[in-house]
Amino acid sequence: MENKFTFAKALIHAAGDFIKNNMVQDLQIEEKTRFDDLVTNLDKATQELLITKIKQAYPNDNIMAEENNIHHPISDGNVWVLDPIDGTVNFVVQGANFAVMIAYYENGKGQFGLIYDVANDILYSGGGQFDVYANDKRLTPYQDVALKRTLIGCNASMFSCNYCGIRDLVDQTLGVRVYGGAGLSMAYVMTGQLLAYFSYIQPWDYAAAKIMGEKLGYVLLTLDGKEPDFATRQKVMFVPKQKLSTIQTYLD
Amino acid sequence: MENKFTFAKALIHAAGDFIKNNMVQDLQIEEKTRFDDLVTNLDKATQELLITKIKQAYPNDNIMAEENNIHHPISDGNVWVLDPIDGTVNFVVQGANFAVMIAYYENGKGQFGLIYDVANDILYSGGGQFDVYANDKRLTPYQDVALKRTLIGCNASMFSCNYCGIRDLVDQTLGVRVYGGAGLSMAYVMTGQLLAYFSYIQPWDYAAAKIMGEKLGYVLLTLDGKEPDFATRQKVMFVPKQKLSTIQTYLD
Repeated sequence: MENKFTFAKALIHAAGDFIKNNMVQDLQIEEKTRFDDLVTNLDKATQELLITKIKQAYPNDNIMAEENNIHHPISDGNVWVLDPIDGTVNFVVQGANFAVMIAYYENGKGQFGLIYDVANDILYSGGGQFDVYANDKRLTPYQDVALKRTLIGCNASMFSCNYCGIRDLVDQTLGVRVYGGAGLSMAYVMTGQLLAYFSYIQPWDYAAAKIMGEKLGYVLLTLDGKEPDFATRQKVMFVPKQKLSTIQTYLD
Repeated sequence: MENKFTFAKALIHAAGDFIKNNMVQDLQIEEKTRFDDLVTNLDKATQELLITKIKQAYPNDNIMAEENNIHHPISDGNVWVLDPIDGTVNFVVQGANFAVMIAYYENGKGQFGLIYDVANDILYSGGGQFDVYANDKRLTPYQDVALKRTLIGCNASMFSCNYCGIRDLVDQTLGVRVYGGAGLSMAYVMTGQLLAYFSYIQPWDYAAAKIMGEKLGYVLLTLDGKEPDFATRQKVMFVPKQKLSTIQTYLD
């Protein structure tokens, strides 16, 4: 597993370099389901790069990935879960605040996860048998903080419509932050910059954070407290386990 | 004016260093008007440092500043407008995403502004007779982008209640971002990461961005299109002048 983790760290840096070297050129932007659901040629090319290198190194492993409907079931064998560019809107508009994400599962059990903040060159990695690091800095497990000294990360529309009482929870805190990328928002939870994160996301959006988070005292659950299905888009929360019951008192 | 601008750049770096050197210690956090309106001992000490150095160098100049009710009128003589820590909540919770801000006005006319992103060591400075820079990189004037390829920065509650139709505007774009600090949000407008910023803020929150923004094709106006009063907390927008009429078609 050590070798596979080392391979994954080199791989995600290669993907980040590929994006940085190519993002200066004109992007080809396509709209997927609607005008604000974007994909670029670089999302697709980066996913190709990731898959090609994984298949070269581990030909019998399987892939679940964001683009092109590559959806091997999480519970079946060795599965790499890939999000080539998480936060594509930020990538297109800001050229920053996006991440490459890789998670590795064996028969449904998370082994390690990686979230790479390309623009800031910060790699969050670990989980399973590995400690979690932000580059060379080891992240410490969650330490309790009073709600009224915290911030909540959230999908803008779930906050705005007080979905499941999320805004009622936010009202107990110092406020909400909307950063627009699931991966980096969950990285900020793991560094303590946010207490929790709520969004409506896909398996490749949460697979890496879930593994790392569990090592640090966080849980990734659906809003009704169940394990996510790794198959459909779901409304989920990424919260400190120790704070789960407190948070649930504010949620419908 | 060149000398004063050079002085201001050295001053804001000194203030940033002071914050960085002291933020590792235990902060004393006080609640001002309510539990989410915070001030720390470092806000106050940093403001003292700024005022002391300005008064040493320019004993006849005047001060308008966030803490301790120091509110010299903007239109009267030489006025330094100071926000020692903009984004105090981010400072307290995240130790990042806050700024020191300095603006310099003569008889109501903005001469230069500075916004210092302390944690990332990025100084946005210029305006008036000076070009605007982010550290050594000169910022270019606003270039038009279609609404549907932009992001809007906004105060969470103004977005959430669709204040003046802001959410209707956001619905024409790729979405909203809530970063929690006026200064850095307006810096992101000037770098093109956000199209516009809407919030309910004080003179020391907008004074620096207003001067720099005017040099780059942006305007800082109240939501009904008037000049801000530099005296009270107001609902304002920071938008490209070229996009103002388009934006106003969505606002009530």
